Amino acid sequence: MRAVVVLPGLSSRLGLVRKSPVRRVAALLAEARGKKDLISFGGGAPSLPPPKEVIEFLIEKLREEPQFSASYGGTRGFLELRELISQDLKRYAGIEPDPAQEMIITEGATEGIFLSLMAVVDPGDEVIIMDPTYLGFIEAVKLCGAKPVGLPVYVEEGFQPDIERLKELIGPRTKAMILLSPDNPTGRVIEKERVKAIVDLACDHGFWIISDETYKHIIYEGQHTYTASLPGAWENTITVCTFSKTASIPGFRLGYAYGPAEAIDAMEKIKQYISLCPSTPAQLAMMAFFKDGVKERYLRETVIPTYKARRDVMGKYLAEFLPEAKTVRPAGSFFYFVNMKSYLERLKMDDETLCNQLIKEVSVVAIPGGYFGERGRDHIRLTFVSEPEERIIEGLSRMAKYITEKAG
Amino acid sequence: MRAVVVLPGLSSRLGLVRKSPVRRVAALLAEARGKKDLISFGGGAPSLPPPKEVIEFLIEKLREEPQFSASYGGTRGFLELRELISQDLKRYAGIEPDPAQEMIITEGATEGIFLSLMAVVDPGDEVIIMDPTYLGFIEAVKLCGAKPVGLPVYVEEGFQPDIERLKELIGPRTKAMILLSPDNPTGRVIEKERVKAIVDLACDHGFWIISDETYKHIIYEGQHTYTASLPGAWENTITVCTFSKTASIPGFRLGYAYGPAEAIDAMEKIKQYISLCPSTPAQLAMMAFFKDGVKERYLRETVIPTYKARRDVMGKYLAEFLPEAKTVRPAGSFFYFVNMKSYLERLKMDDETLCNQLIKEVSVVAIPGGYFGERGRDHIRLTFVSEPEERIIEGLSRMAKYITEKAG
Repeated sequence: MRAVVVLPGLSSRLGLVRKSPVRRVAALLAEARGKKDLISFGGGAPSLPPPKEVIEFLIEKLREEPQFSASYGGTRGFLELRELISQDLKRYAGIEPDPAQEMIITEGATEGIFLSLMAVVDPGDEVIIMDPTYLGFIEAVKLCGAKPVGLPVYVEEGFQPDIERLKELIGPRTKAMILLSPDNPTGRVIEKERVKAIVDLACDHGFWIISDETYKHIIYEGQHTYTASLPGAWENTITVCTFSKTASIPGFRLGYAYGPAEAIDAMEKIKQYISLCPSTPAQLAMMAFFKDGVKERYLRETVIPTYKARRDVMGKYLAEFLPEAKTVRPAGSFFYFVNMKSYLERLKMDDETLCNQLIKEVSVVAIPGGYFGERGRDHIRLTFVSEPEERIIEGLSRMAKYITEKAG
Repeated sequence: MRAVVVLPGLSSRLGLVRKSPVRRVAALLAEARGKKDLISFGGGAPSLPPPKEVIEFLIEKLREEPQFSASYGGTRGFLELRELISQDLKRYAGIEPDPAQEMIITEGATEGIFLSLMAVVDPGDEVIIMDPTYLGFIEAVKLCGAKPVGLPVYVEEGFQPDIERLKELIGPRTKAMILLSPDNPTGRVIEKERVKAIVDLACDHGFWIISDETYKHIIYEGQHTYTASLPGAWENTITVCTFSKTASIPGFRLGYAYGPAEAIDAMEKIKQYISLCPSTPAQLAMMAFFKDGVKERYLRETVIPTYKARRDVMGKYLAEFLPEAKTVRPAGSFFYFVNMKSYLERLKMDDETLCNQLIKEVSVVAIPGGYFGERGRDHIRLTFVSEPEERIIEGLSRMAKYITEKAG
């Protein structure tokens, strides 16, 4: 509006956190747009419309009860919705958190993670996260004044956390460990035996597990392990989840968390001063998601078949077009995390440079693996849910052509 | 779900903040409900349905573009909505923040306050707030590690901040001052000359003003002062606002903040890890609020006449039924803040006991003034927007009957 003269200082905590580097990609995208047909393997959002029953129910509520639909609810969200989620967990996970005491509705998993960290960590505490991991975890840990400690995971090991390596990282300041399974960026589903071992360590050493189960229903093979359902896990585990991926409503900003009453109570206390209460229309919409088999039908008939076919196509052509790339076929979530070391060495590029070039030269968006942590370098993340199959092939073909020509 | 054995410890920051005491009132309410016709002067929510154009536009978007309506937007919210807000500010306040650089959409004013504090304060800093004040401010300041410093305001002075008293509170650790005008709980609209004096002090001493203008359009007499519009104010001021009161959509959780680009940038950075982005449906709905004079018509024809009539009725019968109560007729917002000292002395009760008794004995809800700060003791807060006129009279009559009988 006008030239800034002198501002009072900003908080030193700004020095601790970085802006999501995905934004830099967004700037490059803005440049590239209009020039050429852009194929995006960059996003993390679902690419399907939400179930029509959900939208119709919300429309009905808005029309028939506009005042109620726009009113405040409690900080924990509607009890009726928490009851529906608890029943759903009983069905899928064999656990049945008390809807009144052990559950809270959040603004997506993002708020769930922030609230759970605010509830359990003190400045100076350590929080163990995987490396690479979802980039929001690192910054959220720092915002709460704690220190992220990275547990390296490797493509050669299927990105599974190594328990012996984990033991070495546990110390007197270890206050929590964040699990994300199925994973962003690696697509890894943590093996049940490993989750069990982590639970045992959490119990023995008295630290929290924050289990982010955002992608729990986006599973193509095998089974999701509900951390809180494991023997002994309940008292040490806060589970964070969201409807963003399962119901394809990321813009509604709705998720939930469950765990021991004391932890949920602490999260509620903090939420009062951060966002007050969750969105009423979003909560109304999600009530319809749990009724009349809407959720099961939507996942079975739409979400899983669509994404699985795309995953398979990407896997097939990745192997065919870029045979030296190393990856693990994702058992869940939206992503291939691809080790490009062999090509990058010949290209004399790092992962970020390659991704920048791919946007500029062939209008294909991929995310540099280094954005997800030190051990993510030399990788790229490819989202397979955003584009239909023929465009996945086209995008990989363009990438491969550029890479193989340049790499000689 | 099961008996808690031993939990890992929770964050010591939980010891700093209390649960909103309004929740205790909620528990008493739950007991009272069903027993008797309850009259509530307790809430802080609008009591009108939102403009029908807003709901209809949202329904149309949900029906025609369900996938887009449920998609993620950017962390700052839709540029188009920020442009509409900027044009609206030009019209009302004569300022025109840059929609790209100087504005951010938030989850209501609650998130706006939290983000602005997180952006400007460091642990150990001091933040000046009025005493009494909106109770969320105190806890938000503490959650950010800073220390709230109360500036006493008195019913005898119309709850206006005294500038000489303020000067004495400013010290080397003063990092920000929060203004709320029109005010909750006092209904005070800060006089323009006083806002100017506060701006001068902020400039001289290099602290931030966080100007919460939640009730800026809920004005019955006089004029709202837009802090950021005052000479010299821009570089020191972050303004926080919400659509909750103006558009009667508290459950949509949508507000905004504007200020110097550096501060907004810092808020965006933090918001990425707290809530990611604002609700898409809520943003779509608010675009309709700014079009075709919907906002002006709604405020002029519905909001202000309804609330003003209720305010006048409450003022008239308060003076008639409880002549020893001292208050200031609110020039804005939703509340009378009433000094009950004269009655409380004879009742041998404090404000909290009186409010508890009023719920139990005559089913009338009022909020103890002490909840809003040390200087709020001996007061009660009465919301005048929640009940129609005849029930306002009935409620006051019940209160007065109980008080005068008991006080002798």
